[in-house]
Amino acid sequence: MPRRRYKSSIIERRKEVLTGLENLGVRIYEQLDRGYFPSIEMPSRSTENIYYDPQVRQFILGDKRVRRSARNIRHIRPFTQLVWTAFFSHELASQRKTSTLRDVYYSAQAYEMSFKDQQESNNIITDLETVLGSSREDFNIFPEERSAIFGDLTIEYTVPDYEGRTLNLTSHPDGVMIGPALTSSEFVKTTADKVIAIEKGGLFTRFIEENVHKKFNAILVLTAGQAPRATRHFVRRLNRELNLPVYIFTDGDPWGMHIAMVMISGSANAAHLRELATPDAKWSGVWATDIVNYKLPTDPLDEVDVKRLYELQKDPRYKDPLWQREIKMFLKIRRKAEQEAFSRYGLTYIVDKYLPAKLEETK
Amino acid sequence: MPRRRYKSSIIERRKEVLTGLENLGVRIYEQLDRGYFPSIEMPSRSTENIYYDPQVRQFILGDKRVRRSARNIRHIRPFTQLVWTAFFSHELASQRKTSTLRDVYYSAQAYEMSFKDQQESNNIITDLETVLGSSREDFNIFPEERSAIFGDLTIEYTVPDYEGRTLNLTSHPDGVMIGPALTSSEFVKTTADKVIAIEKGGLFTRFIEENVHKKFNAILVLTAGQAPRATRHFVRRLNRELNLPVYIFTDGDPWGMHIAMVMISGSANAAHLRELATPDAKWSGVWATDIVNYKLPTDPLDEVDVKRLYELQKDPRYKDPLWQREIKMFLKIRRKAEQEAFSRYGLTYIVDKYLPAKLEETK
Repeated sequence: MPRRRYKSSIIERRKEVLTGLENLGVRIYEQLDRGYFPSIEMPSRSTENIYYDPQVRQFILGDKRVRRSARNIRHIRPFTQLVWTAFFSHELASQRKTSTLRDVYYSAQAYEMSFKDQQESNNIITDLETVLGSSREDFNIFPEERSAIFGDLTIEYTVPDYEGRTLNLTSHPDGVMIGPALTSSEFVKTTADKVIAIEKGGLFTRFIEENVHKKFNAILVLTAGQAPRATRHFVRRLNRELNLPVYIFTDGDPWGMHIAMVMISGSANAAHLRELATPDAKWSGVWATDIVNYKLPTDPLDEVDVKRLYELQKDPRYKDPLWQREIKMFLKIRRKAEQEAFSRYGLTYIVDKYLPAKLEETK
Repeated sequence: MPRRRYKSSIIERRKEVLTGLENLGVRIYEQLDRGYFPSIEMPSRSTENIYYDPQVRQFILGDKRVRRSARNIRHIRPFTQLVWTAFFSHELASQRKTSTLRDVYYSAQAYEMSFKDQQESNNIITDLETVLGSSREDFNIFPEERSAIFGDLTIEYTVPDYEGRTLNLTSHPDGVMIGPALTSSEFVKTTADKVIAIEKGGLFTRFIEENVHKKFNAILVLTAGQAPRATRHFVRRLNRELNLPVYIFTDGDPWGMHIAMVMISGSANAAHLRELATPDAKWSGVWATDIVNYKLPTDPLDEVDVKRLYELQKDPRYKDPLWQREIKMFLKIRRKAEQEAFSRYGLTYIVDKYLPAKLEETK
């Protein structure tokens, strides 16, 4: 029996990214060799070039392209920064060291490459994502935030020192951190038949204590608020590589709704990337209609909640009847409820009653 | 050879807390039996009863006491709430279920116990901590926030389903989450001879990648900003039970300084508790003098930073010469620097040069 049961993507992806970075360098050298001013072309990320694609079910970039040329004096600075960032990313990826957005900003100073602030270096990193069509996590630039995972999934590390070692994700009952080592691991085996993503840490712990992973054959993912990009990518992999349906549980308010939506359909900011969204994932609750049906303790919506709901109502990602219905219900009842509100029926009600009902309803 | 090399504290502590809660109930019954209005006495937590104790090196409560009596009509509400909270905490602790502050607020509704908002229930939980002299984590009420740990320490779980199982904290190279299961574990064995606490996730990952745990025989702790109470308690245990010195590395600004100080000397809010501080821990950097000596890239202090420094200057916890000197230097240079600023000398400079120099300097 082969060690890995599932299609490997990590080693290939790592090669692709390195090749992409090297090709970028080769193209620049070739231009120089031919006596041209070197230039780099990429899709435009300006708002008029961002469209919602109902087929792909996420925001995508249109056909407009921009070109950074060393010939144009106003382009020389961002062009040079982009080339340096590609060089530095290649160093990181080939040495398999990870870094953060903040680190890249400071590292530039080691090369006398100047960024006026971190915003400028962040923008250039996004340019590089756009040029390569891969996200910065692929070239080892990771966010600070960490979320967690728990359940019967055995992974195999691909990072130095741990390469080839496996870990079962039930090994630590507080949950296993989703960091660079986990997100770059291969899937070996699982008995789970679904993924349940949860917004709040307290509920994640409750689910583990109540053996939700066993009772519902589930891999549990803690998003810890808005899921970090690395976590969204990892959930997509669970969905695509392991064919596991994904159910998302958030607070019952516009912000919880949007945590689910960004996991499902991505964000306009990441319209240049395809690997962060899980279009088949389901938002399973807490819905506005759940607040009514389960008579949950609530707080009133405040002004900013209401404003946000009106924005979401017009957002193309929210056009499906379910989302529209829930937005309308929030606006009608003018109340919101947190996941913990189910504790009014006892600590285990959410696991014993609500969870199975909603998994069935959103199947 | 006994399985555990170190003095066990967890099982005992769990018994003590349950006994404390039961004794509280017994005292109330006895008062009722004798025909008295029941009452509960505890140290006052009002500001005029909070003192800094240079001996204990933390804030403590003075001799003033307050009494909640069922006889006083204004006391009946908080008295009842306190008794219910003690009952509910006993349920949690004896069933070994964990909960959050938010959960307790909602759970009260299952018992028709009314709190007007979460602030009110949080206050009552702090009252219960004061009555018992143990922190809410001891009666299984945990915060949402999670931090992480990594290094050669083998722990033995005491939570249901995992009881008796061990885990080595190098098992996952993204770090092991510090949650209820970890903080209630016993220490089995370690080869480490120090603890290094780090404020930022990016640097924590860098330290793991660069094998700081091996090169410096260290257990690495990620505080993830201001360390959660459970993490502060765990660091104290590493210091007390394993006799490991603790070095804390934060950003070079008043907020980083204070992250270190709260781990060392606790906070005024927790003056009623002794188990959260590690008075022998050292703040090893980034100092204001490091900013100067290492010529780090900096940002200017803003108004709120300066205001904070003047506050800290008068704080009794900051009276030692080192802290006073660093506050003065911050005010003189009017600049601050982040941990990542060392990347200007290359990604591994902080590990190769800065870390060994500072460990030596603050030994």
